[in-house]
Amino acid sequence: MRSQLLAAACLLGLMAAPAAYAKDVTINLSAKEVDRPIDNNGTMYASWTYDGQVPGPVLRVTEGDTVTFTLTNAATNKNSHSIDFHAAQVDVINEFEPIKPGETKTFKFVAKHPGAFFYHCGAEPMIQHIARGMFGLILVDPKDPNALPKADREYVLVQSEIYANPEDKHAMMKNDWQNVVFNGVAFKYDPVHDPNATKTLVAKPGERVRIYFVNAGPNEFSSFHPIAGIWDKVYRSGNPKNVLEGMQSFVVGPGDAATFDLISPVEGANAIVNHSMRAAHSGAIAVIMFSKDADPKMGKGDLILVP
Amino acid sequence: MRSQLLAAACLLGLMAAPAAYAKDVTINLSAKEVDRPIDNNGTMYASWTYDGQVPGPVLRVTEGDTVTFTLTNAATNKNSHSIDFHAAQVDVINEFEPIKPGETKTFKFVAKHPGAFFYHCGAEPMIQHIARGMFGLILVDPKDPNALPKADREYVLVQSEIYANPEDKHAMMKNDWQNVVFNGVAFKYDPVHDPNATKTLVAKPGERVRIYFVNAGPNEFSSFHPIAGIWDKVYRSGNPKNVLEGMQSFVVGPGDAATFDLISPVEGANAIVNHSMRAAHSGAIAVIMFSKDADPKMGKGDLILVP
Amino acid sequence: MRSQLLAAACLLGLMAAPAAYAKDVTINLSAKEVDRPIDNNGTMYASWTYDGQVPGPVLRVTEGDTVTFTLTNAATNKNSHSIDFHAAQVDVINEFEPIKPGETKTFKFVAKHPGAFFYHCGAEPMIQHIARGMFGLILVDPKDPNALPKADREYVLVQSEIYANPEDKHAMMKNDWQNVVFNGVAFKYDPVHDPNATKTLVAKPGERVRIYFVNAGPNEFSSFHPIAGIWDKVYRSGNPKNVLEGMQSFVVGPGDAATFDLISPVEGANAIVNHSMRAAHSGAIAVIMFSKDADPKMGKGDLILVP
Repeated sequence: MRSQLLAAACLLGLMAAPAAYAKDVTINLSAKEVDRPIDNNGTMYASWTYDGQVPGPVLRVTEGDTVTFTLTNAATNKNSHSIDFHAAQVDVINEFEPIKPGETKTFKFVAKHPGAFFYHCGAEPMIQHIARGMFGLILVDPKDPNALPKADREYVLVQSEIYANPEDKHAMMKNDWQNVVFNGVAFKYDPVHDPNATKTLVAKPGERVRIYFVNAGPNEFSSFHPIAGIWDKVYRSGNPKNVLEGMQSFVVGPGDAATFDLISPVEGANAIVNHSMRAAHSGAIAVIMFSKDADPKMGKGDLILVP
Repeated sequence: MRSQLLAAACLLGLMAAPAAYAKDVTINLSAKEVDRPIDNNGTMYASWTYDGQVPGPVLRVTEGDTVTFTLTNAATNKNSHSIDFHAAQVDVINEFEPIKPGETKTFKFVAKHPGAFFYHCGAEPMIQHIARGMFGLILVDPKDPNALPKADREYVLVQSEIYANPEDKHAMMKNDWQNVVFNGVAFKYDPVHDPNATKTLVAKPGERVRIYFVNAGPNEFSSFHPIAGIWDKVYRSGNPKNVLEGMQSFVVGPGDAATFDLISPVEGANAIVNHSMRAAHSGAIAVIMFSKDADPKMGKGDLILVP
Repeated sequence: MRSQLLAAACLLGLMAAPAAYAKDVTINLSAKEVDRPIDNNGTMYASWTYDGQVPGPVLRVTEGDTVTFTLTNAATNKNSHSIDFHAAQVDVINEFEPIKPGETKTFKFVAKHPGAFFYHCGAEPMIQHIARGMFGLILVDPKDPNALPKADREYVLVQSEIYANPEDKHAMMKNDWQNVVFNGVAFKYDPVHDPNATKTLVAKPGERVRIYFVNAGPNEFSSFHPIAGIWDKVYRSGNPKNVLEGMQSFVVGPGDAATFDLISPVEGANAIVNHSMRAAHSGAIAVIMFSKDADPKMGKGDLILVP
């Protein structure tokens, strides 16, 4: 009797397995046109954002999940906005259509492919909506929890270009940027090059630090490199099947994302850069400090995106 | 008796198998200097072409084939021209040498590596011969018909830059292009952004759509992405051994090509772009419509290059 | 007795194996600010170098080796200099710190990852120290001698940009270069495009030619291609685990390196280029001649970097 039940349960389990992983997830984001700082001195910039922050909130689901997503475009905004999830396989004209101020839009998608995916506004002119800050990361964790080696800490870095004048679409079309930055602020995590920077990424020696890297662009390619370190693994598009080993640098195009594992054998610092030097020198550099007493809360939970 | 014959045939078959795949193929192309449209409004451009079209004809052979190729440079042309096949392993000085108007040149090569390969004119200044339109795709299908999953439809997209003045080599050397386009025409397959566009790529939901993508350049890199979709597979250089899975974007340098499989689970549209936004906004965008009643002739035979 | 000795030797061998490969290696480099030619006409350029040459000396160790490195900054120099080894996992602030004229600095690192790695000066402004010539290759050969197919010849090519005025940091930040070159000199190995060029790379048909390619930048990406040839193998970051097959081109970002195997089935020439044509046309082109009587000394020992 018991073995029959067990067999039935196993059978059911096998058949139901995909459903067990496939959660229904609800996500809401709100387009907000706000002034926010683009450097450590507090220089303000007329930004367009998701939820008032650049990058937008880190979204996180599991492979197979069905996402019900709602975008709100506040009536106080002046522009139409939309969302384009690189993790979704939908109809660009329907799901990704822009909505006017005062409108909301809801759509569903199934996150079929694991990985680290870019999301961004696709309202016209898209180059401006991205340049002004409407972008972020949606992580689709593999349903197999062992698909990737366990990370001790995780961080999110999003590269983007800042154009001197947020209204200057011509400069954007000419790729005439002023800064290339990580997480919306020049030298945000680099007290070495900017004394006004107050934060770095942190970890302990020997820890596997997983960096989810998005290149929001809108235009520039990135040659992503950890100065004084070597990427232990690189997962293209964040997919566990697409693994590379022992890489010094890896090219991530605009509108792409990838996952990078970094392990330091020693105490000290690495400096993560876009090794196209004019990008690094203008702001695309983030220090990660390795020390035995690294704050255990950093690189976990909400602090995978260091504010 | 019959089984003996069969055994003999099998033996012969096994031993002769490589020869069975290795065909002799004759290909002829003619350099033509013609005016042709570079946008959906019919704006004409002083182009240099193979056979009068941009991109040139799609050439298709099988791994192991011996190609006998003849280039004709019509006496009515004003410039020397040549061909450089990325599928060939030959002598750059002999086989790829330019010929003058009124001349022809024949050479042979064996297509040893399977893949999607760029071909282009290599006459000086090469940057101008490419920019004016002398490029195309030569496909070398794997001799193992099961090396790739079967494609339901196939399309060819070739990215290139258009410079305002076809005589302006200085602008070409400065990468100061006016448009980045697919298949020679800005927004050729994008009625969303250009009401004069009359065509899109088409497929049915669930079909495996194989896109052979060439980046002709001459200068720009491409971050190739299907908006609202995910590449099911990417084959670097089109070689079945170089497979990637579940990729949102993939960087293809100038002078390179790759193969991309796209499957839409739903009806609707994807928009294939170079996600470097100034390229997409200037013309490097192609809509693919997924519908149950997609024209069964599209993406097959001659219609893998949509005119 | 003999078999006992043999067993003991085997046991010892097995246990000692890792140590047997892990040598202690001493490397010394000296920063030198010198004028040196940047073209085949002997046009001089105020360069900053390692040991007076561009690229710097090829350094070569084996996976697992401990490197004791000493940098000397001669008192006659005017600037601080440093070294950044992409093969090292250390503290960017300590090991890679700049030293002033008249100072020396010694540090150790273990070369844990096999591959082809960039080294360069990291003193501020790094973009200028790289642009003026402070870069080279450090090879970390795999400890398993069979990890890669045996190469018959090896060559080193390092891509970099030359800016018209070595003092003009603004031009460097704008990526406004004059030439993109291999091994510090425009058209150094290209007598086809520059009659003053006196050298090419050489090999015999059928030989496996291994090219270690570094993209020093400081800014430009490279689409590395052998005209009239096909890369037999590409190893990303030079790591044997990261292999690609039958590739026409491969993108190497600034601050990256990779290993490329080329085999010509015929006599004649290939022309190795950055296929971003404005780079090739300004100097990033190297001819390799395949002939049965290729000089047996070329591509071996010190001649993997052709002077």
